[in-house]
Amino acid sequence: MHPLDAATKLETSGEKLTGATSDAYWNFTGPFGGATAAALLQAAMQHPKRQNLPIAMTINYCAPVAKGAFDIHVSEKRTNRSTQHFAVEMTQGADTIITSTSVFASRPEGFFHTSGKMPDVLPPEKIDPPKAKAPLAWIDRFDMRFASGFPVMRGKDDAPLGSARTEVWMRDEPRRKMDFISLMNMSDAFFARPFHVLGRLITVGTISMTTYFHCDEADLAEVGDDYLLGVADASIFAKGYADQTAWLWSRGGKLLATSQQMLYFRDKAFVPGDKK
Amino acid sequence: MHPLDAATKLETSGEKLTGATSDAYWNFTGPFGGATAAALLQAAMQHPKRQNLPIAMTINYCAPVAKGAFDIHVSEKRTNRSTQHFAVEMTQGADTIITSTSVFASRPEGFFHTSGKMPDVLPPEKIDPPKAKAPLAWIDRFDMRFASGFPVMRGKDDAPLGSARTEVWMRDEPRRKMDFISLMNMSDAFFARPFHVLGRLITVGTISMTTYFHCDEADLAEVGDDYLLGVADASIFAKGYADQTAWLWSRGGKLLATSQQMLYFRDKAFVPGDKK
Repeated sequence: MHPLDAATKLETSGEKLTGATSDAYWNFTGPFGGATAAALLQAAMQHPKRQNLPIAMTINYCAPVAKGAFDIHVSEKRTNRSTQHFAVEMTQGADTIITSTSVFASRPEGFFHTSGKMPDVLPPEKIDPPKAKAPLAWIDRFDMRFASGFPVMRGKDDAPLGSARTEVWMRDEPRRKMDFISLMNMSDAFFARPFHVLGRLITVGTISMTTYFHCDEADLAEVGDDYLLGVADASIFAKGYADQTAWLWSRGGKLLATSQQMLYFRDKAFVPGDKK
Repeated sequence: MHPLDAATKLETSGEKLTGATSDAYWNFTGPFGGATAAALLQAAMQHPKRQNLPIAMTINYCAPVAKGAFDIHVSEKRTNRSTQHFAVEMTQGADTIITSTSVFASRPEGFFHTSGKMPDVLPPEKIDPPKAKAPLAWIDRFDMRFASGFPVMRGKDDAPLGSARTEVWMRDEPRRKMDFISLMNMSDAFFARPFHVLGRLITVGTISMTTYFHCDEADLAEVGDDYLLGVADASIFAKGYADQTAWLWSRGGKLLATSQQMLYFRDKAFVPGDKK
């Protein structure tokens, strides 16, 4: 079984679903947030009354997920003709670990226009993977080819800040056919922006993430197990938190998903920068 | 009482809060979504155990809000040392109308960097308000000065598509001191992107919106009742839905909030465009 399928494997247990964290996606102190988000999306998709396709999912990371078993509770909140709303929560014992909401919708044909621009970058085959061995298990679950914005350590406090923008080809490792679960997982697979800008390994963690899906199953089938081009950027690092906006493009130029998140960062050393 | 305070006025009634829709913020078929979001944020902020400042709020519009009374249910999901999570729902009778989640956090001092760029535009005093009388009540609740991207009707189907980007100075009308409630309300005050791009008055509606706050109370006090510069853009219009990303800047160059939303659009007539 592919590690992502193992990480999102759920069993029905009465009114709830049960699953378990995956060492293959381990991060600093818990599982990679993308895999957790994928498990919650999986739970909503498996709801017996679910109809249509995911269009929006928000996940709030309330507490670190402890290694081991977790429960997921899916609550159908509203079902209309073409849209459907769920609230989904993860608990461990009596503790709420995650709150989330997901929206499903039918996707009619009609006006189509991509006002965003896919960056023109080298194809993934022309880019070497990073040379350093990944320090965390989850990073090895992606084949990443950085077209721009690979994080660079800043040697000195007065060195210029790094760019907040990254362009990186990504696919699941081992390769896996693209679906909504993989897309949700991948929407969190960018290194934290504060790490890029500060050029330091500091404490970071996503607190809330929202992913919007702009594709249907035919678009995903077209991708197969090919790379997506991920673009991530940030607008602000302020008062202990930073934002991130991300775009996931198919090689053929379809914008499959967009995502934004807020993450906390704690940098004990003061670093000079734009004080505005 | 200011119309926004009236629209977000809540009374405690046992375990829930009650409020009522405001004609002053009326939209096509219900109240303006921003005012509804502001009422839900107000509900979370009034929770007796609320601590710290709003940092992220997601609202899912499950069904049109009917004119009249509504109930809001606030559930404290998790309270940590520096972050706190609520689930907030609006109901009318037995129907779920809104699901939402909100996150509060303490905002420590430390590294500060604005990687986004505030556009260099004319000051609001040099820009006339739109000449046409606003067709909907909520539009009159904002003093809007379009620096760029005022929506233009497309006369013919083969006319070029409009730009998805808008830069607009906005303040509450009548003027009101900036706070988190006003910021939440304003983060939804952009005209729908499909309307700008298609240049037609078509059926649109927000289905899900997330706003991130990058400010504290001192930043808001600095704004007073001055204009904010709102920037809105979109990446894609596909299969009946479009995205929107927005930035709200103080005149002094502080990025106070960022927001994204997905909205549906239904255009019966086929409009030529980028078929990619």
